[in-house]
Amino acid sequence: MPENTAGNTPENTPKTTSAAPTDVSVLGLGLMGSALAATLLSAGHRLTVWNRTAAKTGPLTAQGALPAASPAEAVAASPLVIVCLSTNDNVTEALAGLDLTGKTLVNLTNGTPEQARSISGWATKAGAAYVDGGIMAVPQMIGSPAAYVLYSGDEEAYEAHRPTLAAFGGTRWVGTEPGRAALHDLALLTGMYGMFLGVAQAFALIRSESVPATEFAGPLQEWITAMLGAVPDLATAIDTEQHLTDVSNLAMNREVLPNFTDTFRAQGVDPGFFLLLAPLLDRAVEEGHGADGLSRLVMMLKQ
Amino acid sequence: MPENTAGNTPENTPKTTSAAPTDVSVLGLGLMGSALAATLLSAGHRLTVWNRTAAKTGPLTAQGALPAASPAEAVAASPLVIVCLSTNDNVTEALAGLDLTGKTLVNLTNGTPEQARSISGWATKAGAAYVDGGIMAVPQMIGSPAAYVLYSGDEEAYEAHRPTLAAFGGTRWVGTEPGRAALHDLALLTGMYGMFLGVAQAFALIRSESVPATEFAGPLQEWITAMLGAVPDLATAIDTEQHLTDVSNLAMNREVLPNFTDTFRAQGVDPGFFLLLAPLLDRAVEEGHGADGLSRLVMMLKQ
Repeated sequence: MPENTAGNTPENTPKTTSAAPTDVSVLGLGLMGSALAATLLSAGHRLTVWNRTAAKTGPLTAQGALPAASPAEAVAASPLVIVCLSTNDNVTEALAGLDLTGKTLVNLTNGTPEQARSISGWATKAGAAYVDGGIMAVPQMIGSPAAYVLYSGDEEAYEAHRPTLAAFGGTRWVGTEPGRAALHDLALLTGMYGMFLGVAQAFALIRSESVPATEFAGPLQEWITAMLGAVPDLATAIDTEQHLTDVSNLAMNREVLPNFTDTFRAQGVDPGFFLLLAPLLDRAVEEGHGADGLSRLVMMLKQ
Repeated sequence: MPENTAGNTPENTPKTTSAAPTDVSVLGLGLMGSALAATLLSAGHRLTVWNRTAAKTGPLTAQGALPAASPAEAVAASPLVIVCLSTNDNVTEALAGLDLTGKTLVNLTNGTPEQARSISGWATKAGAAYVDGGIMAVPQMIGSPAAYVLYSGDEEAYEAHRPTLAAFGGTRWVGTEPGRAALHDLALLTGMYGMFLGVAQAFALIRSESVPATEFAGPLQEWITAMLGAVPDLATAIDTEQHLTDVSNLAMNREVLPNFTDTFRAQGVDPGFFLLLAPLLDRAVEEGHGADGLSRLVMMLKQ
């Protein structure tokens, strides 16, 4: 087969890697857990579900899922146990004292790297192969090509169950350190929250003169997308610690910053993150980094 | 001619609207002013230049620009006067007391809507047609298709000189209110600064575990670009004041926020804008907006 034929698969070959129908248990049927469970059912797996509030199992058992009366029953039912609860404290509580011998525990609960490492520690002691995951999607996107999940931890267990996990969307391995998926997840979402905060403040500013947000949305999306083109060079500057720039240095940015804070105040809009950026730029210039680019700020955020 | 034939121009017709070679004066030869002046020279205009520090006129006069000894001399030399100084205070100072009768003054100095309105006021009294502009590019981009300039103010003067101004890049008219270009400019840059702040914090977080920034750059750029797809719906929610969402509401976002602040602190990285976002989400939920989406925050930023 020639390379790069993705998308050109002849019609008589299978379109996707099919998973052998592994038995799977899903613990936690919030919006995300329910989306994961429904996707596994559609993929043809024998599915066992447990939720603290039993009523939430209804829609899934109506589609053929088997209800478990307890976490222990759910864990006993399948070799692959996927957990998606509201917090990792709930994960610890639900699984406390259970025998996980021979199970693969895939924890897709939102959490921190430290929590992932801690749960990995006790799950491994309880006999499980532990995989931690970070879902880069909202529940509505699960099962679509736009969704993907970051995984870290026990690589052998991950590879064994990857065909099953691929039902949720793309799969991205980020390392054997169990907290690594949560770290990547939080870092990606940090970038997103910063962008949305910028977008929210931009809309608040433009709306202060009654310009319709819908008129401004296209130019705003286009502009930020174009500026994202600077991210790879920024990464190179960080890794090589070559912070000097001839494009838009910190001293120049500092010079125009009062235009923003003054205008936000004049328009009666909260200047928000500019109040954080101003002292950061002041400090950069004071410390002699005025000719450096944005990559210098990344170094300064390290405390 | 049928509509929507842009880009389908037959090869034997001119590819761009050519400007008749208007005489132009440029005041201010910093990095941006010099880039503007060089572009006008390349486009074949008779160019007069002035800079407070006369030495900076050298590279341009070597290419054929005419040096002016004073702002008055530069203004007298051409019907189109483009000003790009470091601040609007310098603009006021440079042009104070000059007769601008019959001149079109295009002010591309970084500034606020209020400054643009004020300069428009006195320039108009001094006899000029006033156009304010916001340059959406770094100097290196001037003259490339990626650059564009927002304009507002005297529409007739703008239309008359648009073929000349088009040498800098795209031209976008945003309204007759003279401060409008500065408002759009600052709002677009606000979105960009938020994005870059998010990117900087994301890199700082990922680097705290020695993941190379270059390895993380692609996924980060891709993820934020994908999330920018939500901007048009966000704009619709703002304009229609329909803030309820079934995707990712403020209460859910608030619930996971401690994962970020805890992780930033555990990794020894400044939590930065999360310290602003947390109280904003707290207030949104307290005020009964927990089921609303991000668009609600735009309303809350209005003071």
